[in-house]
Amino acid sequence: MTSEFDKNTAGRLVPFHVNGREQVPFKGVGAHRPAGRKAAPQLVSCADYPDSGDKRVATIAEALKECGLEDGMVVSSHHHLRNGDAVGNMVFDAASEIGVKDLMWFPSASFPVHANQIAHLDSGLLHHIEGSMNGPLGDYCSRGKMQGLGVLRSHGGRWQAIQDGEVHIDVAVIAAPSADAFGNATGDQGPAACGLLGFALADSIYAEKVIVVTDNLVPFPCLPWQIQGNNVDVVVEVDSIGDPTKIVSGTTRLTQSPDRRRIAELAAQFCVDTGIMQDGFSFQAGAGGTTLAFAIYLRDWMRKEKVTARFARGGSTKYMVEMLQEGLIEYILDGQTFDLDGVRSMREDPRHINTSPFTSYNFHGKGNFASMIDVCVLGATEVDVKFNANVVTHSDGRLLHGIGGWQNCLAAKCTMLLVPSFRDRIPVIMDDVTTLCGPGELVDVVVTERGIAVNPRREDLLNAVAGSNLPIKPIQELRAELDSLCGVPMRPKRSEQPVAVVKWVDGTVLDTVWRVG
Amino acid sequence: MTSEFDKNTAGRLVPFHVNGREQVPFKGVGAHRPAGRKAAPQLVSCADYPDSGDKRVATIAEALKECGLEDGMVVSSHHHLRNGDAVGNMVFDAASEIGVKDLMWFPSASFPVHANQIAHLDSGLLHHIEGSMNGPLGDYCSRGKMQGLGVLRSHGGRWQAIQDGEVHIDVAVIAAPSADAFGNATGDQGPAACGLLGFALADSIYAEKVIVVTDNLVPFPCLPWQIQGNNVDVVVEVDSIGDPTKIVSGTTRLTQSPDRRRIAELAAQFCVDTGIMQDGFSFQAGAGGTTLAFAIYLRDWMRKEKVTARFARGGSTKYMVEMLQEGLIEYILDGQTFDLDGVRSMREDPRHINTSPFTSYNFHGKGNFASMIDVCVLGATEVDVKFNANVVTHSDGRLLHGIGGWQNCLAAKCTMLLVPSFRDRIPVIMDDVTTLCGPGELVDVVVTERGIAVNPRREDLLNAVAGSNLPIKPIQELRAELDSLCGVPMRPKRSEQPVAVVKWVDGTVLDTVWRVG
Repeated sequence: MTSEFDKNTAGRLVPFHVNGREQVPFKGVGAHRPAGRKAAPQLVSCADYPDSGDKRVATIAEALKECGLEDGMVVSSHHHLRNGDAVGNMVFDAASEIGVKDLMWFPSASFPVHANQIAHLDSGLLHHIEGSMNGPLGDYCSRGKMQGLGVLRSHGGRWQAIQDGEVHIDVAVIAAPSADAFGNATGDQGPAACGLLGFALADSIYAEKVIVVTDNLVPFPCLPWQIQGNNVDVVVEVDSIGDPTKIVSGTTRLTQSPDRRRIAELAAQFCVDTGIMQDGFSFQAGAGGTTLAFAIYLRDWMRKEKVTARFARGGSTKYMVEMLQEGLIEYILDGQTFDLDGVRSMREDPRHINTSPFTSYNFHGKGNFASMIDVCVLGATEVDVKFNANVVTHSDGRLLHGIGGWQNCLAAKCTMLLVPSFRDRIPVIMDDVTTLCGPGELVDVVVTERGIAVNPRREDLLNAVAGSNLPIKPIQELRAELDSLCGVPMRPKRSEQPVAVVKWVDGTVLDTVWRVG
Repeated sequence: MTSEFDKNTAGRLVPFHVNGREQVPFKGVGAHRPAGRKAAPQLVSCADYPDSGDKRVATIAEALKECGLEDGMVVSSHHHLRNGDAVGNMVFDAASEIGVKDLMWFPSASFPVHANQIAHLDSGLLHHIEGSMNGPLGDYCSRGKMQGLGVLRSHGGRWQAIQDGEVHIDVAVIAAPSADAFGNATGDQGPAACGLLGFALADSIYAEKVIVVTDNLVPFPCLPWQIQGNNVDVVVEVDSIGDPTKIVSGTTRLTQSPDRRRIAELAAQFCVDTGIMQDGFSFQAGAGGTTLAFAIYLRDWMRKEKVTARFARGGSTKYMVEMLQEGLIEYILDGQTFDLDGVRSMREDPRHINTSPFTSYNFHGKGNFASMIDVCVLGATEVDVKFNANVVTHSDGRLLHGIGGWQNCLAAKCTMLLVPSFRDRIPVIMDDVTTLCGPGELVDVVVTERGIAVNPRREDLLNAVAGSNLPIKPIQELRAELDSLCGVPMRPKRSEQPVAVVKWVDGTVLDTVWRVG
């Protein structure tokens, strides 16, 4: 499927063509400039839509037919319902009834629940997937079974790809926890409430045809119209769009691991000692166990030092909502809601703001929020001594995770990777990451339970913590310490068969994922 | 400036070319289909915008230079600040300093305060204006003094023209009552608060360059971001964007004219007798004295009959806000805020919703709200016996008003024109309107203080009021009655020189406005 490769600026071997489309190899952070104009769908007329505003049809299959589904088209869906999503599977089951082939599935992310799609990949209904492949689909792709190459993009990169016309969506299918017959839709109400629908926003604007699927039809107007009916072609009512117990957690769980709590504690103290934590600052912390613990330690420091954050970026959780209510945070600018408290807060509290990859992450915009964040804490599967990081593959090369907003968040003023020293007895710090997802120049700090490495490029941070009692160490020293504890493991030899590529936030190709097993 | 004319489907003489651009003559309601794709601005990169998000420059002149202002460009501004606007004038005063020429001004509407622009039209800085010209600029245009033709569009037509690429905005200038340094902007706060900024939304999305001008800079994030900073290039702080006393009324005034109150009362009773006023219905009534009085009479009926409206569309006023608070209306879907109560309600009440011409009026969308309204009451300067209506010129042919949302509102399920029988002793009902703005097939009812004429196309409405005590009369009879009272006035002979065209909601040319005097 690809014939030629070349090394990009990061020294990674990347294909010239991916799924028949010519690629631009990664040129360095901020070095590539896009050419041309934004993508734009066909002009339409209200004369071809019902005056009543009622766009309902009876089934998803009927909706797909009305949208002119044909062989080779690109069909998108979204991961707001996470592992509880039923719609992503219903769409391709319906497409299978219609009898088309060679579709490209373009999910904002896929989850284990979407293992359903493996049969459709085997049958030829689906040609390939461009989007995060968590779990079984990642494994399927890793084993070289997919007809096309996987393309992994960050949340911001997905917006950029749609906006720039790299990916032309023929039919977008949006699972909506509440919607009206006109197609206005919201994620913050209904039995399958998930908070927001920001990942579907680009699709609703740029796709040729847009289908809204809901199990909670409300009278016009459905408010807030996170998705605007004016962009929607067809509305379908179904019994259930997903399993609420798998959409959001009842409550988010903090890590109980002493090592991980230690990492979180060190990271929070780093923010204090460097002076990053000051009145009016901003931070981003996800819903992973360690980054969540970071937020808790930070909260305690904020209380103690009487510091208020102007805003925090979610994934939102109960803990962040409590900080909002306590007045420690003035606004939550939320990209994804992880638990029921987050959903309720977004619905009820005007300070809990619904954002999208456009506002937060799109690199081909007139700025975005990511670069305005004072400190962002993230995880990684691997880090190397050049501060490069990996977030999609394990050390055995298997593709098991998506990028999410991770690449986009690297733009923060201070980016900290919170990682355990070892995973399965393999040191997390190495010579070269298996897959390059984040260029080291954007990673400012690596925090492990055994020490903190600050990127030498950040002399300002090194100076700021010079007098502190934090265990600051050169990354080579930290690495040597880990190697001395476990020994340097054999690295698996990579195959010659590419199975996926990792895009950078500007649409260039950063690295290749190779077949395993 | 134009060489050839032809009669369109409505029998009106319209030019083939307007300001150098080929035109499509009006083909009939719903008959024209647009071809091609939506317009789209150039791709940009965050690498060319400050990471800090601070996009401020010192002056409007500097902002215009940064946006590459050149001869012949299109510069837009907006009428949210109405006759209190200072920014529309500051922009062209600054452009004059820079020394460019032949600009096209593309305001969403202009007001008497913008008479300032006459000097710039005379000097050649401005080539022509496309947009409503209320008062002095309309008079200037009417007298044939503008180099190019005026182009009058409805609010929805303006969105359509931008979206379809008919008008390519080089530089959009948005007066923002509050904004942050990133360019997020809102109209609902600040010394010059005007409510919403919906008329600038299309410009922010489609213009190549966007300048936000504010007199109330707030820390990031400015919320709600009615205009998103991700679409904004430059932010300028000025001492004052306008005179608050002329932006919104302290309180809106009801008509005191007995004739006009009678018209409003008849119109409200018509809604009751036809059964249009029923639980869950929707209505649109503007802030003019008569339509406002209509809303009051309707309110009294709603109270009496215990009927609740699902939503009402504004322009919002104190009276509509009171109906919301009283529970007579579930939601206000507001397109323009006319008084301080409206602004406060939009800011504080989550049921008072900020809309835009995209949601409400754009005819080249996948439906819009206008066709979903049960009843809409509007004014007109003239109506003819075919129910055609005029809203831009007076009977002497002078161009003195803009179209506003008027054409778009004609899509309602029942459109009622509330007009006095006479204006300056000239009967309002005539053989042929001076300027055709609304095709008669979309006008369902004409209400005067001397009787109600129902369009014969609406047999359903005629049947519904057959047994009522309303003064229903054929329009010819109503016209004869008016003529018998005043005599038929001499119509002024129209000149051969076009000064402006009136666009229909689909971008076709509906009629021509001719030079007067």
